[in-house]
Amino acid sequence: MSTFTLGLIQMRCSPDRATNLERAVERIRAAADRGAQVVVLPELFLGPYFCQREDASLFDLAEPIPGPSCEVLGRTAAECNVALVASLFERRAPGLYHNTAVVFDADGSMLGTYRKMHIPDDPLYYEKYYFTPGDQGFRVFNTKYARVGVLICWDQWYPEGARLTALRGAECLVYPTAIGWHPKERDEFGVGQHQAWELIQRSHAVANGLYVAAINRVGHEGPEGGGLEFWGGSFVTDPFGGLLAKASHSDEELIVVSCDRMKAEDTRRNWPFLRDRRIDAYDGITKRFID
Amino acid sequence: MSTFTLGLIQMRCSPDRATNLERAVERIRAAADRGAQVVVLPELFLGPYFCQREDASLFDLAEPIPGPSCEVLGRTAAECNVALVASLFERRAPGLYHNTAVVFDADGSMLGTYRKMHIPDDPLYYEKYYFTPGDQGFRVFNTKYARVGVLICWDQWYPEGARLTALRGAECLVYPTAIGWHPKERDEFGVGQHQAWELIQRSHAVANGLYVAAINRVGHEGPEGGGLEFWGGSFVTDPFGGLLAKASHSDEELIVVSCDRMKAEDTRRNWPFLRDRRIDAYDGITKRFID
Repeated sequence: MSTFTLGLIQMRCSPDRATNLERAVERIRAAADRGAQVVVLPELFLGPYFCQREDASLFDLAEPIPGPSCEVLGRTAAECNVALVASLFERRAPGLYHNTAVVFDADGSMLGTYRKMHIPDDPLYYEKYYFTPGDQGFRVFNTKYARVGVLICWDQWYPEGARLTALRGAECLVYPTAIGWHPKERDEFGVGQHQAWELIQRSHAVANGLYVAAINRVGHEGPEGGGLEFWGGSFVTDPFGGLLAKASHSDEELIVVSCDRMKAEDTRRNWPFLRDRRIDAYDGITKRFID
Repeated sequence: MSTFTLGLIQMRCSPDRATNLERAVERIRAAADRGAQVVVLPELFLGPYFCQREDASLFDLAEPIPGPSCEVLGRTAAECNVALVASLFERRAPGLYHNTAVVFDADGSMLGTYRKMHIPDDPLYYEKYYFTPGDQGFRVFNTKYARVGVLICWDQWYPEGARLTALRGAECLVYPTAIGWHPKERDEFGVGQHQAWELIQRSHAVANGLYVAAINRVGHEGPEGGGLEFWGGSFVTDPFGGLLAKASHSDEELIVVSCDRMKAEDTRRNWPFLRDRRIDAYDGITKRFID
């Protein structure tokens, strides 16, 4: 096939898990109806972003993979004949939890998981408390429709993750995400923060000559004047960093975009960055600092 | 010192070498008068971009480093009390030539050279014919005013080069550049090409939390309707990718921008990407492709 079609579900996440799952299923169906072949949900879409505080009881939210949510999601993928990327809070063993994306193929089978490699820890994003860093490396999933590279949120700031996933033959990178503004910072820093976020991901498209999609949640979560205001802005960029579609900062949206394989190959032929990499000189990348 | 001040010289390059050198010297003086401390010239500013064709006689343009141009440039740096980055066609040995940036400190001494690591080869940019790829790796120069990371043109498309230079403690990356449009392609692709070029370099600022400057030439060179239309657009971005200054696509310009060290450190504190790099998992970066 000369194209594949991405479906991005930008959604609010209510306090009720069953409701979120139900709404996700509805939207997967809606995306499939509009022609989407690879559908991606936002990071940890089953509930509010719980990492705003450190609370041991919240580990109860984690679930095994495969497990109950996977069952519903896999069934939905099969019914809709779509590949599906769904981000879950994985309980791997007692005391061992991951921020994990599960990839289902269009027949509902689980192709595998990607466990978030780069884990943030910032005010109201206390992820290092909850998530053990991924131990599977960077991964690509050969779905029925496309070879999909999966990364998660904080990974998006790391050119290394994008590059390593691209080198495994990804045709697109998808970033399930939960990122927002601190309401008190928004006036001063909001535009710059969002701009940097969009820019770094578009740059992965440029550097690697592939499609990139970010799938964010939307809406305010937490106490009034505090908490986090998730900024939406989900988007798809072409292999030269051009925006193909972009959601608003405030609304739930469904983005469906067709991606042309020949456009990607043309881009790489005309700007052949992969040809000229100095792999003899990149050793230092595995150092923390070169001092 | 809490700041350092960059001076970017966006210039046309005439067919006459002596004239270009003279005009470069004038502008270095003008930049110093306006407070610049680290001054950067465009790539191969001593003449028209000769790589538009492959012609063995053009190797005559190369010169030893140190050599006659270095003498003038070093003297000018000392007179003006500025650090200076100047891109030259280096004759290292008969049959061995490099695209080299020479870094002078404010006392006129040569701190060293950076030999372009990533060498392009595309229609009208036949650089692989002229330039042996650099064998010094990625480098940082401790000038009087700032720790300057020097990269050249095509390097700008490689996150690896930016990262490795940042890991050596660069406070800014400077990219002497000669990039332009093919006049016949400009209508269809011009906006996208320029956008990708600016975007990827801004992303290096974001990923690494440092200042980035691109210094391009301007003007059309070559036969009417053909040749290359160098697109100028020299710029400086802050450590979060925000544009601090940007030159036009058509005019010679001098950009002088003060860079605040505390702003860089604040950016890195608030978005601590260097903290969370997965250096245990980046090995594959030294592979051509992971198949």
